Amino acid sequence: MTFSLPVLDFRSDTVTRPDDVMRAAMASAEVGDNVLDHDPTVAELEERAAHVLGMAAALWVPSGTMANLVALSIHLRRGERFLATRGAHVLANELGSAAWLAGGMPEPVEHDGGPGRPSPDGLAAAIGRPAPYFPLRTSLLCLENTHNAAGGAVTPPDEHAQLLSVAKEAGLTVHLDGARIWHAAVALEVPPAALTVGVDSVSACFSKGLGAPVGSVVAGSAEFVREARRMRQMLGGGVRQGGILAAACLVALDRVPELAESHENARRLAEGLREHGWPANEPDTNIVLAEVPDSLAAQTWLDSLGIRAIAVSGRVRFVTHRDLSAADVEETLRRLKTGA
Amino acid sequence: MTFSLPVLDFRSDTVTRPDDVMRAAMASAEVGDNVLDHDPTVAELEERAAHVLGMAAALWVPSGTMANLVALSIHLRRGERFLATRGAHVLANELGSAAWLAGGMPEPVEHDGGPGRPSPDGLAAAIGRPAPYFPLRTSLLCLENTHNAAGGAVTPPDEHAQLLSVAKEAGLTVHLDGARIWHAAVALEVPPAALTVGVDSVSACFSKGLGAPVGSVVAGSAEFVREARRMRQMLGGGVRQGGILAAACLVALDRVPELAESHENARRLAEGLREHGWPANEPDTNIVLAEVPDSLAAQTWLDSLGIRAIAVSGRVRFVTHRDLSAADVEETLRRLKTGA
Amino acid sequence: MTFSLPVLDFRSDTVTRPDDVMRAAMASAEVGDNVLDHDPTVAELEERAAHVLGMAAALWVPSGTMANLVALSIHLRRGERFLATRGAHVLANELGSAAWLAGGMPEPVEHDGGPGRPSPDGLAAAIGRPAPYFPLRTSLLCLENTHNAAGGAVTPPDEHAQLLSVAKEAGLTVHLDGARIWHAAVALEVPPAALTVGVDSVSACFSKGLGAPVGSVVAGSAEFVREARRMRQMLGGGVRQGGILAAACLVALDRVPELAESHENARRLAEGLREHGWPANEPDTNIVLAEVPDSLAAQTWLDSLGIRAIAVSGRVRFVTHRDLSAADVEETLRRLKTGA
Amino acid sequence: MTFSLPVLDFRSDTVTRPDDVMRAAMASAEVGDNVLDHDPTVAELEERAAHVLGMAAALWVPSGTMANLVALSIHLRRGERFLATRGAHVLANELGSAAWLAGGMPEPVEHDGGPGRPSPDGLAAAIGRPAPYFPLRTSLLCLENTHNAAGGAVTPPDEHAQLLSVAKEAGLTVHLDGARIWHAAVALEVPPAALTVGVDSVSACFSKGLGAPVGSVVAGSAEFVREARRMRQMLGGGVRQGGILAAACLVALDRVPELAESHENARRLAEGLREHGWPANEPDTNIVLAEVPDSLAAQTWLDSLGIRAIAVSGRVRFVTHRDLSAADVEETLRRLKTGA
Repeated sequence: MTFSLPVLDFRSDTVTRPDDVMRAAMASAEVGDNVLDHDPTVAELEERAAHVLGMAAALWVPSGTMANLVALSIHLRRGERFLATRGAHVLANELGSAAWLAGGMPEPVEHDGGPGRPSPDGLAAAIGRPAPYFPLRTSLLCLENTHNAAGGAVTPPDEHAQLLSVAKEAGLTVHLDGARIWHAAVALEVPPAALTVGVDSVSACFSKGLGAPVGSVVAGSAEFVREARRMRQMLGGGVRQGGILAAACLVALDRVPELAESHENARRLAEGLREHGWPANEPDTNIVLAEVPDSLAAQTWLDSLGIRAIAVSGRVRFVTHRDLSAADVEETLRRLKTGA
Repeated sequence: MTFSLPVLDFRSDTVTRPDDVMRAAMASAEVGDNVLDHDPTVAELEERAAHVLGMAAALWVPSGTMANLVALSIHLRRGERFLATRGAHVLANELGSAAWLAGGMPEPVEHDGGPGRPSPDGLAAAIGRPAPYFPLRTSLLCLENTHNAAGGAVTPPDEHAQLLSVAKEAGLTVHLDGARIWHAAVALEVPPAALTVGVDSVSACFSKGLGAPVGSVVAGSAEFVREARRMRQMLGGGVRQGGILAAACLVALDRVPELAESHENARRLAEGLREHGWPANEPDTNIVLAEVPDSLAAQTWLDSLGIRAIAVSGRVRFVTHRDLSAADVEETLRRLKTGA
Repeated sequence: MTFSLPVLDFRSDTVTRPDDVMRAAMASAEVGDNVLDHDPTVAELEERAAHVLGMAAALWVPSGTMANLVALSIHLRRGERFLATRGAHVLANELGSAAWLAGGMPEPVEHDGGPGRPSPDGLAAAIGRPAPYFPLRTSLLCLENTHNAAGGAVTPPDEHAQLLSVAKEAGLTVHLDGARIWHAAVALEVPPAALTVGVDSVSACFSKGLGAPVGSVVAGSAEFVREARRMRQMLGGGVRQGGILAAACLVALDRVPELAESHENARRLAEGLREHGWPANEPDTNIVLAEVPDSLAAQTWLDSLGIRAIAVSGRVRFVTHRDLSAADVEETLRRLKTGA
Repeated sequence: MTFSLPVLDFRSDTVTRPDDVMRAAMASAEVGDNVLDHDPTVAELEERAAHVLGMAAALWVPSGTMANLVALSIHLRRGERFLATRGAHVLANELGSAAWLAGGMPEPVEHDGGPGRPSPDGLAAAIGRPAPYFPLRTSLLCLENTHNAAGGAVTPPDEHAQLLSVAKEAGLTVHLDGARIWHAAVALEVPPAALTVGVDSVSACFSKGLGAPVGSVVAGSAEFVREARRMRQMLGGGVRQGGILAAACLVALDRVPELAESHENARRLAEGLREHGWPANEPDTNIVLAEVPDSLAAQTWLDSLGIRAIAVSGRVRFVTHRDLSAADVEETLRRLKTGA
């Protein structure tokens, strides 16, 4: 299919591409063999990421999926039950690796505390429902902030603290899927470390909305990261001159404040979609979920307009990111209006 | 705690004990080394069970949990999604072995078709909701008939056929957890084989309400059972002179028609509980779920009356079985009424 | 194939059948629901077995394979290397469950300390050979006493102590596969507990040469056994009225001293085989390995004489047991001599 | 420790760093989202790699460890035995992931056909030694060409063909760990595809001696690669704008012929080491194994001379690569001679 108009790609913020500044950083990165001993740029990234996330240490991994998998594999013993919010990435988008590889028995928790999070009572109830006699030991809670499937919803620090308190009282380990924690921090105007208080591990991605081509981190205690390094090696995620990629992640980290622009664009887009007659969430961050009569038909029609968005669970999902400008949003709304 | 009155144990039908007839059958069983080559009594049981379940072949295993685990391990490839009814034994009572050992990613399906089963549309919707781009491959449906957590509810053959049709159209393998399939057959007055039409494998237990001390079977095609034999050996379920146990299972199989008495007792018990002010299901088979203000308090109070029953998900579960007579049910209701 | 002469079955000591005394014990066993709460006969067996094995606690399991699997699953974390003597049951006869289920990376250790055991130096060398940079963490040593593939060879307490000392110094956990520990104790004229000094867990079987139809135990600390109970349940090894089987195991335990007769028979058989021109080991216990020109041909020829033995690794293995008398051994040698 | 002399790093060919040409290729690479849909540079690499390896299709993965893990996970079913040459990377250097993740029971095969490979008879014997009654199903052979632990030894096409013939006759799947297949092809002066005849899958690395910072491929049939793509996603090896890295791999692929220089340097180094009194292999490719009285002491002494090499199994391993010139080899020998 060809378009006379330029394609506007709202499918995901993972489509962002490295710009010239980032490419230059990669091209001039100092590197070493990061499996054999040490890559200085990877080390710099890991140190900075740990600091900004408020954790003792961090480890670079090739993807957010591996970051979560490493954490779950360390936290879960065989046959332990773990809780994650319904629709969470670890449940819906990682092909069951949490079950197969980490050996955990997943249980979705409802979002009764607001989009993307359970209420403290809902969480307590979910923890406290073991089967008789041989209870599945519930050992892990996986939170997600921002929550992708819930429209990029943000969990603020006070609610986070309440959930942590419930989980810790019940003896649970807590992993935070922070693939888009940068978005949450920007939206809340707090440092990312304010959102990791009390968690045992956190993952964060540099390739979601920030332009880095490849790379995430998983952070935790020094001991956790030592074990994570082994687990990364086992999964085949140990790479040699990773500094090339870490250099891009460092640039991405500097650009976190710029995410505010994507959020503004998302709000404008949601407003425009509502004007178009498609009810949409008031986005906390950069994800807009529009209700349409027929989501697959809508996706096809959008495609014909050169607008790429994804039909998800009966809605159409638009994700704004640094490669889409305010003008692109206006152009999107124009095409919707004119049908051309 | 001691009671002047005899304890009436409604906790589960697994508490039934072998009687003299069954013990005599065990004591005189012909046996062989069933791992090394052949135990004639085990072979006889496997042949009879396969026949009565309408499958090509069957394999004795020490427990219903192992029967299900063997089947799931054969049917599921790593990281495949499987569907089971909410509260199913494979989800709630097997300590996550389906995830850890079989590598499957579980998803509960709601009981919108009646207690213990989804509707065909509900099932189709559950199958058809893959995440975009890298869909978790849904490969298995696990039904349970009767359904324990749904109060021993029966799925009749016509509804079973509709669910099978939806599953097969979507390319799913189907395993039937038939731990209490004998109960379903008796309640429906159909042969057990009428309840396995189209399934790829079925498990069935001889120690639930039938008095056999130990033993279940898992049945399927000849090839399935060949593979199941290896899997049983891997799990440590291969036993030597298993004929001792199989002899009891054969007696149990002869006693299937007698389950009707437990069902009658369950109906009378449910009626009496309702008269007592505890709303209870109209039991299809031998499981009564009574709604009480405070299930744990109720369980404790019952204990003080020499009545043992289990608080499950806010209700109290009573299971009737061959070691409890009609008179025992009346005595139970008498104690409830008099509080002594 | 039919024989006019009675078949003499030397294939394994697992072929022993319960006699009338044992069958009577089973028939009159007191039982309970051992998953739901408690089976008194199982409890008695577990207590006696723990005591005689010198461990804090023990757990009944349906097979030696499951006993080992439970122990390895508890001791090994994912991707840890474990050492076992070449040809050990956990390496060669459990279908790789140690790898798949316990997640361990096996490494065979040579028998340079004598049949069935490494030397302390050989063990130290095997432990101390990690690959550079990302060493496979060696975390477990699995000993086997007596050692089946090494011809029922016995490791005496002083050598055991030396190996334990090497293993413990290197921080390894030690599991003892004691499927035939009773044989070792009888041959050495020491209590079984003298052979478990320092180990973290031990398995022992009642169906190998002692006549019990089904059953083994795995023993260790109280905490180990708590975890083992969960693991047994996950694997499907939890059974209901297990007392039927435990009653037979208790009889078997009383019969341990009678194993001396099998050992005497094995020595006589080995002597006779050597006279026949088949070099054979001087058996420590009840396993005779005869060197023959063509082991498969020899097995076939023996079959034609009504003598059942197994070709293993180019030799023929004869196992004596309580269902074969001294007269049976003489008859075996007679048939060999006369070829009829 | 500081050196006045430049450090010469022979520890591994993984230490090679991207040069300016390669960095420029990365900086200007055309990219896309390779998880969501398509990265054109990754696609180009995969197509070229498949072609040059003689396979239907190929998949980029972040490491050789993941390439092997993906292949083994696809080929092995739970609890199947696989054979690999003693010291193979999949046995010794991947932390047991073949056991834990792929569920395979490893068995080392001896190098009786020459360094790095079994003889056809040795292979047949290794395949044909199943335990009685419940044989571990042997289902996979993993070859390694060149063989790292065997000193970069090359298996020529005729021997490869004989081994394949034995494996295929026995119904085995064959995976070739071709991390350094480029080296083998250059040394033998054959195209790489001549070394993959008959294999079901092959892995190959671009970061070993060729300068690419990150990246390997795993190649096989179209169906294999479809499944491998899912497996890569499960392991967390799916990356977004992978074209940055693939661009470097494409440059590396162009540089394969230049490996001949490393081989020449290795020969010269081995000659010099022998003159120094350290017996060394006649290297087929770029790995020199020197026998020394005390390998750890030798490594330390070399360190003090600014020469980095690794003590492996009692020898010292030197690996030549594109970041070490002929002059560097001469300088190395000079330092050895003068001890300064």
